[in-house]
Amino acid sequence: MAKIVECVPNISEGRNPEIVEACIAPIKETEGVKLLDYSSDTDHNRSVITFAGSPEGCVEAVFKLAQKAQELIDLTKHEGGHPRMGAVDVIPFVPIAGVTMDDCVELAKQLGKRMWNELKIPVYLYEAAASKPSRQNLAIVRKGEFEGMAEKMKDAKWAPDFGEPAPHPTAGVTAVGARIFLVAYNINLHTDNLKIGKRIVSCIREAKGGLVNVKAMALLLEDRQQVQISMNLVNPFDTPMYRVFELVKLEAERYGVAIAGSEVVGLVPMEALVKNEEYYLRLEGFKSHQIVELGLFGE
Amino acid sequence: MAKIVECVPNISEGRNPEIVEACIAPIKETEGVKLLDYSSDTDHNRSVITFAGSPEGCVEAVFKLAQKAQELIDLTKHEGGHPRMGAVDVIPFVPIAGVTMDDCVELAKQLGKRMWNELKIPVYLYEAAASKPSRQNLAIVRKGEFEGMAEKMKDAKWAPDFGEPAPHPTAGVTAVGARIFLVAYNINLHTDNLKIGKRIVSCIREAKGGLVNVKAMALLLEDRQQVQISMNLVNPFDTPMYRVFELVKLEAERYGVAIAGSEVVGLVPMEALVKNEEYYLRLEGFKSHQIVELGLFGE
Repeated sequence: MAKIVECVPNISEGRNPEIVEACIAPIKETEGVKLLDYSSDTDHNRSVITFAGSPEGCVEAVFKLAQKAQELIDLTKHEGGHPRMGAVDVIPFVPIAGVTMDDCVELAKQLGKRMWNELKIPVYLYEAAASKPSRQNLAIVRKGEFEGMAEKMKDAKWAPDFGEPAPHPTAGVTAVGARIFLVAYNINLHTDNLKIGKRIVSCIREAKGGLVNVKAMALLLEDRQQVQISMNLVNPFDTPMYRVFELVKLEAERYGVAIAGSEVVGLVPMEALVKNEEYYLRLEGFKSHQIVELGLFGE
Repeated sequence: MAKIVECVPNISEGRNPEIVEACIAPIKETEGVKLLDYSSDTDHNRSVITFAGSPEGCVEAVFKLAQKAQELIDLTKHEGGHPRMGAVDVIPFVPIAGVTMDDCVELAKQLGKRMWNELKIPVYLYEAAASKPSRQNLAIVRKGEFEGMAEKMKDAKWAPDFGEPAPHPTAGVTAVGARIFLVAYNINLHTDNLKIGKRIVSCIREAKGGLVNVKAMALLLEDRQQVQISMNLVNPFDTPMYRVFELVKLEAERYGVAIAGSEVVGLVPMEALVKNEEYYLRLEGFKSHQIVELGLFGE
């Protein structure tokens, strides 16, 4: 199996397409990686970029993106709805195939070190890469945002993992980390009764006594007049799609409501789909490299 | 989506590993294709080679394989259990991704023309590439085998699609064609009663009133003391795995027998697995390029 890592840098620019394009250019030019998606939000004044490829390629490409962002984005003049502390605000590495979470933690450390040494941007490691439990949660690391960082970093508790305890004057501070792949998965119900949707949500989400690794909310799709259970599966390997689907079906049945359909928004790793095949077909001994398309790009 | 074709040449050598390796070497050396699997059968004195990659790469690699086989395999001295008429006996092209069956028919024609022009091996086109319905079935095309070909080809009805109506003196004749991907799929039952297995087989196979595109037989797995329904799904897109699984489950239930598990032997195309996801999760609007690993290698 080829080694594949996904990387999802968030930059603090969502209004000037030229700057966004300039930041993305290095990804298009780097050997061994491929741009999968990017989107800008003008209210947030922020762009989310998704690319993937070889571990070395990802580190190289995102370093160059950070360099470009440092050059072109000035946080002293930045305003937008989304919390942020850096020109490149956050960079997670996500294991896709042939690499472990530990490998991604190593990539985060490599990148963090290089961002300080070459760009003079201090770095916090977060989530699976965090140097202590209090730094796992990005929201807590970022609290105070760019404007509050000079003060926050003076506290020894918040000394950065790489670099000196002061933000870069215009590019701020970056959070670099490693996390599991997140699948955006929605289930649509044959009902327009939002109350039923909300009751189902309260049965299935982690926060309310349901499945771990599931964040869920209910909303009404006006055009279809169907209630949608909109979810983030934050660990689609331990808590696979089929289990979520079958539990929603089970909870909906008590209201006499059937499932109309489901959808994957954006990307899903092969291994998450294989979990479904294994469950429904009771597949034994199946290996991803038996899939022709994947075998082709393996070792 | 990248264009991917699979090619499964069968050569009439299964006893001398040096000759087999020499024939496979061009596949390893050709840019844009990858050797996926090969196996030799000494009783049959035959080897089956599976590789895949770009359409041009597949034609180039298999032409060089045919050239090597013509050089090293002498059918006048060949004996083995499996019917054969050529040093390279048969070459099917199989559409995997981003290519149609018609594209594969074109590849078969390109290769056939080149095999006659450069190697002086006459070629019959078969299955989807057949020039008339009577040539679709490989067994009928090959009837008479190498020893009978000189006589058979004199009949205008059996003039080859490329080349003169006489076999190459040592390399014989080759069948080149295009066909759908075939999935070898087995379902194991919680019973050691082979009679039940045979009854189920008679309900599900095409030949006996069951599903089209399904070839099936029942056998007893001695070590597990389970009956296995061993199948070839010759069109896993029109007749997908989930339908076969659910029908076997249904027929087994009348005997109070449950399914123990199922297995894919060898390779399966992504699209065949996606059919299962779509059915069981009622997935709407799913596209293969949403799978991270595939998106990476797309256009």
